[in-house]
Amino acid sequence: MQIVLAPDSFKGSITSIRASETMAEAITSIDPSIQTIIKPMADGGEGTLEALLKATTGVSVPFFCRGPLGEASESFFAEIDNQTAVIECATIAGLPLVPLGQRNPDVTTTYGIGEAILRAMDRGNKHLIIGLGGSSTNDGGLGMLQALGMKAFNADAEKVGIFGKDLLEIEAVDFGGMDPRLMEVTIQVACDVDNPLTGSNGATYVYGPQKGATNDQLQVYDQALSRYGQLIEKACNHSLANVKGAGAAGGLGFALLAIGAKLQSGAKLVADAIKLEEAIKVADLVITGEGQSDEQTLYGKAPGYVAELAAVHHKPTILLSGSLDGNVDKLNDVFAGCFSIVPGSRTLQQCMDNGELYLYNATKQLIHLIRKL
Amino acid sequence: MQIVLAPDSFKGSITSIRASETMAEAITSIDPSIQTIIKPMADGGEGTLEALLKATTGVSVPFFCRGPLGEASESFFAEIDNQTAVIECATIAGLPLVPLGQRNPDVTTTYGIGEAILRAMDRGNKHLIIGLGGSSTNDGGLGMLQALGMKAFNADAEKVGIFGKDLLEIEAVDFGGMDPRLMEVTIQVACDVDNPLTGSNGATYVYGPQKGATNDQLQVYDQALSRYGQLIEKACNHSLANVKGAGAAGGLGFALLAIGAKLQSGAKLVADAIKLEEAIKVADLVITGEGQSDEQTLYGKAPGYVAELAAVHHKPTILLSGSLDGNVDKLNDVFAGCFSIVPGSRTLQQCMDNGELYLYNATKQLIHLIRKL
Repeated sequence: MQIVLAPDSFKGSITSIRASETMAEAITSIDPSIQTIIKPMADGGEGTLEALLKATTGVSVPFFCRGPLGEASESFFAEIDNQTAVIECATIAGLPLVPLGQRNPDVTTTYGIGEAILRAMDRGNKHLIIGLGGSSTNDGGLGMLQALGMKAFNADAEKVGIFGKDLLEIEAVDFGGMDPRLMEVTIQVACDVDNPLTGSNGATYVYGPQKGATNDQLQVYDQALSRYGQLIEKACNHSLANVKGAGAAGGLGFALLAIGAKLQSGAKLVADAIKLEEAIKVADLVITGEGQSDEQTLYGKAPGYVAELAAVHHKPTILLSGSLDGNVDKLNDVFAGCFSIVPGSRTLQQCMDNGELYLYNATKQLIHLIRKL
Repeated sequence: MQIVLAPDSFKGSITSIRASETMAEAITSIDPSIQTIIKPMADGGEGTLEALLKATTGVSVPFFCRGPLGEASESFFAEIDNQTAVIECATIAGLPLVPLGQRNPDVTTTYGIGEAILRAMDRGNKHLIIGLGGSSTNDGGLGMLQALGMKAFNADAEKVGIFGKDLLEIEAVDFGGMDPRLMEVTIQVACDVDNPLTGSNGATYVYGPQKGATNDQLQVYDQALSRYGQLIEKACNHSLANVKGAGAAGGLGFALLAIGAKLQSGAKLVADAIKLEEAIKVADLVITGEGQSDEQTLYGKAPGYVAELAAVHHKPTILLSGSLDGNVDKLNDVFAGCFSIVPGSRTLQQCMDNGELYLYNATKQLIHLIRKL
């Protein structure tokens, strides 16, 4: 018997790698003859890079760059199979990297993302996978584009800085100096939000507040991104601000579109990169998981995508979840069974602290049952 | 496919009848072609009578009797197949029938149990099943024996009363007036405790406090039961005070032994009465459940007994529990799989209030899975 283990992370409790390893350990403890295929999943957000590294023969590449506050920093990206580099926004300019009191769109930048792209190209990578999600920035990708060679000027034709606040005075941009290698690489962006660049459903109004934007800043930044967007669109001769996902990661989605990137479902992108489908083809059963499940699990979330992929090959998928909420029946459209790993009345803290143990035990019970039926 | 549904109650949340019905509803909602056989279980304690009524073609027989405080009361017993009556201690002299402030071994009595036995014999029943557990009394069965015709006297050769406090002055007992029909009936007592009548592990010291006994009363009653026990043993010419279970239900176990009753595992007794084994023989799968599970589940608890019985016939048993605690692996000695019905981090109150819903959903997921494997 072969079982593919392709959980997402159980957020705040178990990484997807540990989740898949825990499942494998549980299965082996019950029946060492069962072959487990570990394929930790991710949806393009935090943990994507780690999951890809684990599921492929990839290596981690450290590099120096500017952090989200422009500070000298060290981060890393991954190189997986086929000249493909994976860059994770959260790792370079993530919200957790900015101390609580300093979160402010004025002072954050995506410059480091641009540097990561440069380093990845320096090393000969031809395909870039960039995971959005978890960013601290609202700079519309200004920093990244500047790192890649774009010049931006104010009304006095002086070059502007690389931070969010610099958006407010940009009057012109020049793509002439962009790194020419960008024309030769493919960029796939893992993106699971549909927001346009601006407006009430745009980057600033929807995600600004969690990045420290005050009410006053919301209007200012929404307008600044709108003007900036028009400049960029004109420069690259494409209408991009209303493409779904342009508003992702504080408008970084928009800037990536401007350099020819393709926005895709993060789960699909990760699944492709880790060759999940090949593993599923030879498996008898798939087990996935996540910290919290409801109907949204079916729309772009990793477990939902795993199950869809398994269904194509007529393989049953079981969902192990930290919490089953809402209309669970709906989940049975794709999942053969959905089970909570929580063993009884437990506080959220208990669940977080004991996530691995609960997952281990729940997996064991499942496998035990399957062998007895 | 045939599935036997034989859960115990989920204490404080779902009766065993509702639990089995809920499981059946869940199964039918997934696949109406699956035949469900409802066999609510009990372990001889609260809910036993109801479960037996449900699983057999039994009828409820109302009767007037004295309540636990000696008050005029109305209660009921059940008549099931084969001239068998089922009497539940908790229904007649149960702790919940005595208001909190009035719980006191001085003023409670098992007299009503004796009356139930009389009524059952009046109606021609030849077999009596008596469920202990949940009693409010510590009278050593004095009240019951008096109802059945035993006379008890004080030092002045005056008849004593029927309450716990009357134990303190008993100097002689006379079995001469016992109802002669008692010789012709078999009495099986569902009893899952091993306590002797007296001593540190006896009725008073172990169960007295939860029935309102003060520290002062503990010693007094332990000694009184000891003297009373010797009188009874002499009168019936049997050594009974140290028989396992003599200390059940405040010494009611002892008094039942004195009239020739046989103490048995409650779960086995109930299973026999509801013909559980016959149902299991024709089933493909057994599902049981309870409010809280740990290794103790294997020792005399209803779900453990159900699984043992199923194992004899090589049928897998699944346990659905309100809480899986301790070493769950041990449970796999008899259970094919053990699953919590709690869908995530939930308070005990949420679990209690939503027990049926949680059980319904968990059953659905199980059946869904089984059909897909």
